[in-house]
Amino acid sequence: MYTLVSLFKLSVPIYVHNPHLDALKDDILYHFSLGTGSHNLPAMFGDVKFVCVGGSPWRMKSFTEFIAAELAMEDPKSEYPNICAGTDRYAMYKVGPVLSVSHGMGIPSIAIMLHELIKLLHHAHCTDVTIIRIGTSGGIGLEPGTVVVTKQSVDATFQPKFEQVILGKTVVRSTDLDQSLAQELLQCSKRLNQFETVIGNTMCTLDFYEGQARLDGAFCSYTEADKQEYLLKAKEAEVCNIEMESSVFAAMCKLSGLRAAVVCVTLLDRLKGDQLSSSHEVLNNYQLRPQKLVGSYIKQQLKA
Amino acid sequence: MYTLVSLFKLSVPIYVHNPHLDALKDDILYHFSLGTGSHNLPAMFGDVKFVCVGGSPWRMKSFTEFIAAELAMEDPKSEYPNICAGTDRYAMYKVGPVLSVSHGMGIPSIAIMLHELIKLLHHAHCTDVTIIRIGTSGGIGLEPGTVVVTKQSVDATFQPKFEQVILGKTVVRSTDLDQSLAQELLQCSKRLNQFETVIGNTMCTLDFYEGQARLDGAFCSYTEADKQEYLLKAKEAEVCNIEMESSVFAAMCKLSGLRAAVVCVTLLDRLKGDQLSSSHEVLNNYQLRPQKLVGSYIKQQLKA
Repeated sequence: MYTLVSLFKLSVPIYVHNPHLDALKDDILYHFSLGTGSHNLPAMFGDVKFVCVGGSPWRMKSFTEFIAAELAMEDPKSEYPNICAGTDRYAMYKVGPVLSVSHGMGIPSIAIMLHELIKLLHHAHCTDVTIIRIGTSGGIGLEPGTVVVTKQSVDATFQPKFEQVILGKTVVRSTDLDQSLAQELLQCSKRLNQFETVIGNTMCTLDFYEGQARLDGAFCSYTEADKQEYLLKAKEAEVCNIEMESSVFAAMCKLSGLRAAVVCVTLLDRLKGDQLSSSHEVLNNYQLRPQKLVGSYIKQQLKA
Repeated sequence: MYTLVSLFKLSVPIYVHNPHLDALKDDILYHFSLGTGSHNLPAMFGDVKFVCVGGSPWRMKSFTEFIAAELAMEDPKSEYPNICAGTDRYAMYKVGPVLSVSHGMGIPSIAIMLHELIKLLHHAHCTDVTIIRIGTSGGIGLEPGTVVVTKQSVDATFQPKFEQVILGKTVVRSTDLDQSLAQELLQCSKRLNQFETVIGNTMCTLDFYEGQARLDGAFCSYTEADKQEYLLKAKEAEVCNIEMESSVFAAMCKLSGLRAAVVCVTLLDRLKGDQLSSSHEVLNNYQLRPQKLVGSYIKQQLKA
């Protein structure tokens, strides 16, 4: 039965939309320190089915160790070498069909990574790839530690769009994410039953301080009342949390045919404060939650 | 004479513009893993007079080793510990009055760092601080390896402005840099006489691929002719190079009273190509040039 279904299921490739790429003799993925001329990308990455991305290189390494244990694929002798060891821009780890990549902070940083990741998966002839961003965020009206699976990524005016500047002109791109994947992740969290998980909109900003109405940056020209008014407007627009990468992540994954989700834990309730003053232990515990949820989901998918 | 001049020279503090900061019991600089409650910032940083920032943590560490040797302050026993070892968001090193901090890639990443750096320098009661970004860039019509000292940072439409979104509304900020500092750096490079240095405008973009008219991203909807037309328009606007951090760097330093400059080497001529295909040896050699120039400048200033 499985084989029969598989026969009728068309595999989904990774789309690049760039006629110029064919003319390149080698394609150098500079910020990964990888390339088609120097590396056998199909041999290295051809079996990838899940890609998990997150801001911090440490967290993406620990995710790889976690997923290796979850999938019982851990090699006690292995140190999970950083595949991008030739650069310090990003870190990349792989265990079985799961690739784990760091992306730094903010839209430009994750966009560079995604351009090169999409080309990497394309050059490696990967198909049916699911990509999930596991990150941290500020919550709005949620208990700290709540995990948010993003329904729609919205901008600072609560619109579901990403503005890409091309040759000095602004092009608007959709920030739709895969709704069935979001639902599957929510169901998975219910089965896991270890922490609260909700589905809601995620606001993506270009700045952590003034851009997120924080009162504790080097500059602040608004009052506590202005801040509350803005965050409550966001809440009315069904914004559950705020982070800095989801919009371009959603836009680029949609363009390239990657099934994509954003799973972020909230480290604090922004209606109650701005500073991340919880202990490192508490914050570290919160940061493990998206890893646990996504690890559980991947394990379940690979068993199916 | 020196004392007399000093008596009449008013020292310039670091300005934060945020009335809410005084109300904070502790100020946690989360992305540095430092804080006013946990660290004695005046003791740790009160003597800082020069701050050098750059994207790559490795490069900022090597800059610290270089400047220690230049200033004959190197301690052969010292490993120059990373002051931000409690986090992997940024790396920070210090030798004498010179602080070296990494900022990752893109405007949002450097903005988070600058908010916390400006607060750090303010809490440490630093005065008369000069800050210089040493980075890499794509050149327009320049021989690769040329160093560009930024006259003005311009956006993707060649306007000298930075748009900061605050509570969902756009506020326009000036991207003026210190012109006398730029001239001093140019003179210093002439004395050094090791590589070509020019003063010109720097275009700051939110994206490395489509945002800089590259033909080698995962997506590209324009032709080689469109690309050339856009880059030649940039050249007409006196843009010498393109990078991803200078506009918010200029805007935030101006607001906080930091004397600021941007010194970037060009790794390639964008009129001739997009891929960074030079050997690692050549690229590494180019990347040392801003370090050499700024190291020489700091040495000269500290001797004066």
